Amino acid sequence: MQKIKIGLIGYGGIGRVHAAAYRVIPFHYGLPADSIQIAAVATTREATARAAAEEIGCEIYSADYRELLARADIDAIDICTPNNAHHEIALAAAAKGKHIYCEKPLAMNEQEASEMAAAVQAAGLKAQLTFNFRFFPALARARQLMAEGFCGRVFSFRGRYHRSSYISADKAMSWRLQREITGGGALFDLGSHILDMLYFLLGDFASVNATLDTLIKRRPIAGGQGETAAVNVDDIALLQARLVDGTLGTVEISRMGTGATNDVVLEIFGDKGAMRFDLAEPAWLQVYDAREDDGARGFRKIETVGRYAGQRAPDWSMSPGFMRAHAECQYQFIRAIWDDTPPEPSFADGLHIQRIMAAAEASSARGGWVNVAE
Amino acid sequence: MQKIKIGLIGYGGIGRVHAAAYRVIPFHYGLPADSIQIAAVATTREATARAAAEEIGCEIYSADYRELLARADIDAIDICTPNNAHHEIALAAAAKGKHIYCEKPLAMNEQEASEMAAAVQAAGLKAQLTFNFRFFPALARARQLMAEGFCGRVFSFRGRYHRSSYISADKAMSWRLQREITGGGALFDLGSHILDMLYFLLGDFASVNATLDTLIKRRPIAGGQGETAAVNVDDIALLQARLVDGTLGTVEISRMGTGATNDVVLEIFGDKGAMRFDLAEPAWLQVYDAREDDGARGFRKIETVGRYAGQRAPDWSMSPGFMRAHAECQYQFIRAIWDDTPPEPSFADGLHIQRIMAAAEASSARGGWVNVAE
Amino acid sequence: MQKIKIGLIGYGGIGRVHAAAYRVIPFHYGLPADSIQIAAVATTREATARAAAEEIGCEIYSADYRELLARADIDAIDICTPNNAHHEIALAAAAKGKHIYCEKPLAMNEQEASEMAAAVQAAGLKAQLTFNFRFFPALARARQLMAEGFCGRVFSFRGRYHRSSYISADKAMSWRLQREITGGGALFDLGSHILDMLYFLLGDFASVNATLDTLIKRRPIAGGQGETAAVNVDDIALLQARLVDGTLGTVEISRMGTGATNDVVLEIFGDKGAMRFDLAEPAWLQVYDAREDDGARGFRKIETVGRYAGQRAPDWSMSPGFMRAHAECQYQFIRAIWDDTPPEPSFADGLHIQRIMAAAEASSARGGWVNVAE
Amino acid sequence: MQKIKIGLIGYGGIGRVHAAAYRVIPFHYGLPADSIQIAAVATTREATARAAAEEIGCEIYSADYRELLARADIDAIDICTPNNAHHEIALAAAAKGKHIYCEKPLAMNEQEASEMAAAVQAAGLKAQLTFNFRFFPALARARQLMAEGFCGRVFSFRGRYHRSSYISADKAMSWRLQREITGGGALFDLGSHILDMLYFLLGDFASVNATLDTLIKRRPIAGGQGETAAVNVDDIALLQARLVDGTLGTVEISRMGTGATNDVVLEIFGDKGAMRFDLAEPAWLQVYDAREDDGARGFRKIETVGRYAGQRAPDWSMSPGFMRAHAECQYQFIRAIWDDTPPEPSFADGLHIQRIMAAAEASSARGGWVNVAE
Repeated sequence: MQKIKIGLIGYGGIGRVHAAAYRVIPFHYGLPADSIQIAAVATTREATARAAAEEIGCEIYSADYRELLARADIDAIDICTPNNAHHEIALAAAAKGKHIYCEKPLAMNEQEASEMAAAVQAAGLKAQLTFNFRFFPALARARQLMAEGFCGRVFSFRGRYHRSSYISADKAMSWRLQREITGGGALFDLGSHILDMLYFLLGDFASVNATLDTLIKRRPIAGGQGETAAVNVDDIALLQARLVDGTLGTVEISRMGTGATNDVVLEIFGDKGAMRFDLAEPAWLQVYDAREDDGARGFRKIETVGRYAGQRAPDWSMSPGFMRAHAECQYQFIRAIWDDTPPEPSFADGLHIQRIMAAAEASSARGGWVNVAE
Repeated sequence: MQKIKIGLIGYGGIGRVHAAAYRVIPFHYGLPADSIQIAAVATTREATARAAAEEIGCEIYSADYRELLARADIDAIDICTPNNAHHEIALAAAAKGKHIYCEKPLAMNEQEASEMAAAVQAAGLKAQLTFNFRFFPALARARQLMAEGFCGRVFSFRGRYHRSSYISADKAMSWRLQREITGGGALFDLGSHILDMLYFLLGDFASVNATLDTLIKRRPIAGGQGETAAVNVDDIALLQARLVDGTLGTVEISRMGTGATNDVVLEIFGDKGAMRFDLAEPAWLQVYDAREDDGARGFRKIETVGRYAGQRAPDWSMSPGFMRAHAECQYQFIRAIWDDTPPEPSFADGLHIQRIMAAAEASSARGGWVNVAE
Repeated sequence: MQKIKIGLIGYGGIGRVHAAAYRVIPFHYGLPADSIQIAAVATTREATARAAAEEIGCEIYSADYRELLARADIDAIDICTPNNAHHEIALAAAAKGKHIYCEKPLAMNEQEASEMAAAVQAAGLKAQLTFNFRFFPALARARQLMAEGFCGRVFSFRGRYHRSSYISADKAMSWRLQREITGGGALFDLGSHILDMLYFLLGDFASVNATLDTLIKRRPIAGGQGETAAVNVDDIALLQARLVDGTLGTVEISRMGTGATNDVVLEIFGDKGAMRFDLAEPAWLQVYDAREDDGARGFRKIETVGRYAGQRAPDWSMSPGFMRAHAECQYQFIRAIWDDTPPEPSFADGLHIQRIMAAAEASSARGGWVNVAE
Repeated sequence: MQKIKIGLIGYGGIGRVHAAAYRVIPFHYGLPADSIQIAAVATTREATARAAAEEIGCEIYSADYRELLARADIDAIDICTPNNAHHEIALAAAAKGKHIYCEKPLAMNEQEASEMAAAVQAAGLKAQLTFNFRFFPALARARQLMAEGFCGRVFSFRGRYHRSSYISADKAMSWRLQREITGGGALFDLGSHILDMLYFLLGDFASVNATLDTLIKRRPIAGGQGETAAVNVDDIALLQARLVDGTLGTVEISRMGTGATNDVVLEIFGDKGAMRFDLAEPAWLQVYDAREDDGARGFRKIETVGRYAGQRAPDWSMSPGFMRAHAECQYQFIRAIWDDTPPEPSFADGLHIQRIMAAAEASSARGGWVNVAE
């Protein structure tokens, strides 16, 4: 089994999570400690790159990500930059034959996403997206049950991702509120997760009827004297959606979900059963089996930990942490390289999510249903 | 204090609930047992009317509701018939000067509802609708808190009413699935409740963007040999809505909410606070106060029972039952007669709900936003 | 079917609940309104008796309960007095051949309870206790499941009844805190309920190891000038218990359960399954079936309403109220008279609970295990 | 800041958790990757020691823990062996001047625990116990609130630790069921955690009244032909307890808590407030403030993450994992070495827990209250 050497590009909050997650993977899967290494790190400034290298324990660092791509001893790169750098880095990495692990959302827009998916496909590389929520045990179990037909014919679904991070009008303008850097607002940041979770369980989206809104339209400039700047991304996005198979559903996405830290809920209602995922208890899936006898039916909270091949996962057994889901997602990427299998979630998956988001923006602008590009 | 004599029209399941509720009101408010009487009952057949009278303990019964309206000793009527009889009975009752208590939704359509509201207004009568959910303690408390500005500027809201009563394709056709009798499907039956709850707390609706669907399009005829009939009402209704004050929200209504008995949830998110009502615990309101200190904030489940003037309400104190909310709603109607005050929820309120539902149907047909009539 | 005429003795808060509950029974069971009547009421003063009669709608009232017992047209009495009058009234009623419905706990002590149980047995009367919690749908369903062996061999159980009614040291002395009137404190008032629920599901108690404590030992006299009086009953009672079949369990009873309104929880753990009742949702029982496949097991919240013969129970269908459970309990008493069957819960059941409470008091005094009298 | 080199002794499930946790600490606190190293590992067999070293990424391994103690370049040892080796290893390590991090419970009995606490005290070493539950954010916040007097005078408390790991009578005999290896059963394994959590929040225990039981008394020998062996430890332990300040409480510990994976609950009831910790949501603490206005009081679920100095803790922010609490506990140990401050939880704390457990065993044998040794 080939040792995998990773070049990490970007080392903000999420870069740190990825780095830590790589270090614990061996303990979950009985691998040698040196089987997965972060060999190099790049940020945009030398000082931060050096500090990152010290924390990570790697020797190579740079203020230019291309130096990492140029190295023959780097097998894969992990992109943890803001969204507006994904496209450039991914295309450059593909050109250098590096496998790619990339934070979500895939890109700034459909055009970029489409080019990225095409590039990795053409190069025959492994390219995976950080849709880490798929790897919470309850969601993995939900996928199994859906595949087994547990819910029967699906009547409808619902998804929600609420945070309350921007409810204060005093909170300053930031890069997360600038379309030039992120491509979109709550829809891109939170919505990409919940849309992927629904897509993961239910399949392709056909059309959406969406309403996006910016609830606080100007915010103070950080460190300013009272000047404000315009917010040009959405704070809230409400979607009705039709899947390709005709199933109808609703999705609520908001950064103004007062009281929520990470309120992520997903529900599926079918003629044979129903299920409910709640991030508050990511090791437990709620299921309802309509086939059961009258007087015995009811929503059941099933434990979902430890049901997946190859795991030796002590930290799943109590409360599965955020980092654990990242580690699992990253491990799948590593395995795809080792086993030469298609990685999942792929850039193609990320492209579909990007298209749903693009359709949602178009729908909101127009005020009616818009088809998702195929 | 005048003794109130009521003529009850219709004695199916909900008529029985109303009748029982009238009988317990005196115990909750320290009134003489004979202060409120069901003096007469009418159904469409003499046998059922007689049986109803025996169960209720009244002497007068009839297979013709007009006989009740003709009696000088009947002060008020209570309409518990299917929706398609509301309009005719209410207009006839108004013509005879009877106060009216009517089951929801008000009518088959906006036109009927408008005529009914006009008729009782012109006649100077007390006319109230059975939006009994308003009278669960937690919702009453929510109204108080909204009036006090607890939530501050409202960012968004969400409402849900799910039942699972029709998930089986084997379930036979019934009058509840026939537009000629009900005027509408889940939207009318369940939606009228949740829309009124939102309107009660948040105010007038301005426009809606709705999708209605009939998930099971044909059903077997009861007692038939395999023949089926077409369902011509909605099973599910998904709404995005804008209030007059600009607030955005979402509403989910479904009879195919697998696993739900009566899953009724209402959420409001504002810059100062949030609240959540859940019918599963109708004596408790969840509130979040964003004004509190960091490290102390959180959703709080406040007990809401026993905070309203004049109640001696032992059965509120543990788990407030469905019938208790009906009794409270009916008592408000009686009080409006006694005190000559405007009843609430009024026929005008019912008309607004009818207009929201009409706009939702139009929106679904058209596939975009439709204004609610003023 | 004989019309039942009831004489109600005592008309405080609980007397009012009983009176209201009798009036709604016909609607739940399709009975004629006049099949069950409160024909007379007695309190200790003429003024309160007259007011009660007006509220109830009965003509006969008295300040001497013996006048009710003397009437040939009274079939049964319902004792809603403080505990210290139960024994005298029940014995007098038995002597007059009246059926008896009595509030819990049965008596002031084991001696009284024993005499009461013997008296009604000797007289061949129907005598039932208000252990109304048995009649919440979820507890009735729990009993069915226990009878079917759902839990298998029971490993252990737990019961809790917490209220927070006395947490303030400023709360004045009251009759509920005086042993002369109540016979005991939290153990008698709250404990009798939870002990009966456990007994109902699990069978006879053999021994207990209990600790009782009075947490606030003196309280101000109501309307006084700062004088205080000693509290001579328990505020809290913690029990370990062994059933006759050897099963071990624990019970927590407290009036100082800060934050609780009526926190009533019951859990049973067995080798085949587990169950959990929570009064917060009295229509839902949580069950866990250990026989199910790995990956499907989990606590399930089953709906328990409407599964019992003869009910036409609209108010069960949403949230079953406190009064509804009383109505059901009272109806069982009426049925026992009509059908000449043994009433349940009987005075003999009440005597067993009284013996458990007596053993708990003895155990606490001694500091170790004490056997429950047979 | 001195680099810390750790010798890990024992590499079963919990050893792996400790090893992984050390590796992620730098990312949570901005430390250089090499500031904390597992430099050596010892197990009882060379093959397992070598495999462990490969997974951990350290060069030194041994089948004799004394080789680790003999090395000058090892600063501290981490004891992850079964309980019966703690005493010998800790005393040997203290003699060699190594700081000690030890899994719970501290020892096989009070005598051993007492000697261990004395040895590290005499040697002036840092010695800490793995009471990792203290480090879940909600419990850390509970401690803060208790220190601020949030609950006022405490009336009572309750603790529970339930697992269902041994409900099947077919489950084979194992070392966890042998007193010779573990010192005790559920009381030692699960009880030590919940007792420490209560002690952490409430202070010293004075006496206990306990009942321990072995519910399945014989189990099949693994891989045998139907032979069975006697279980000589408890499956269940029920405690009543008095703290030194007089507070009364109850504790439930069971390995036969059917349906539970790790059901850990702690409740405190006081005249000013109440609190509730539930391991199912370890980032949220439920608190009730009795000082608040009537109509505003209620249990509140407060978010507790990210409130502690020095943390950069991305994985706390969603769902804090089991490993994260271990990392935090281990970091406190490292900090105690770096800052030369007393480690917490200390061996003295572990000794107090051991004494409570010893008193519980004595109490169960005798059937009454037993004082906890001072």
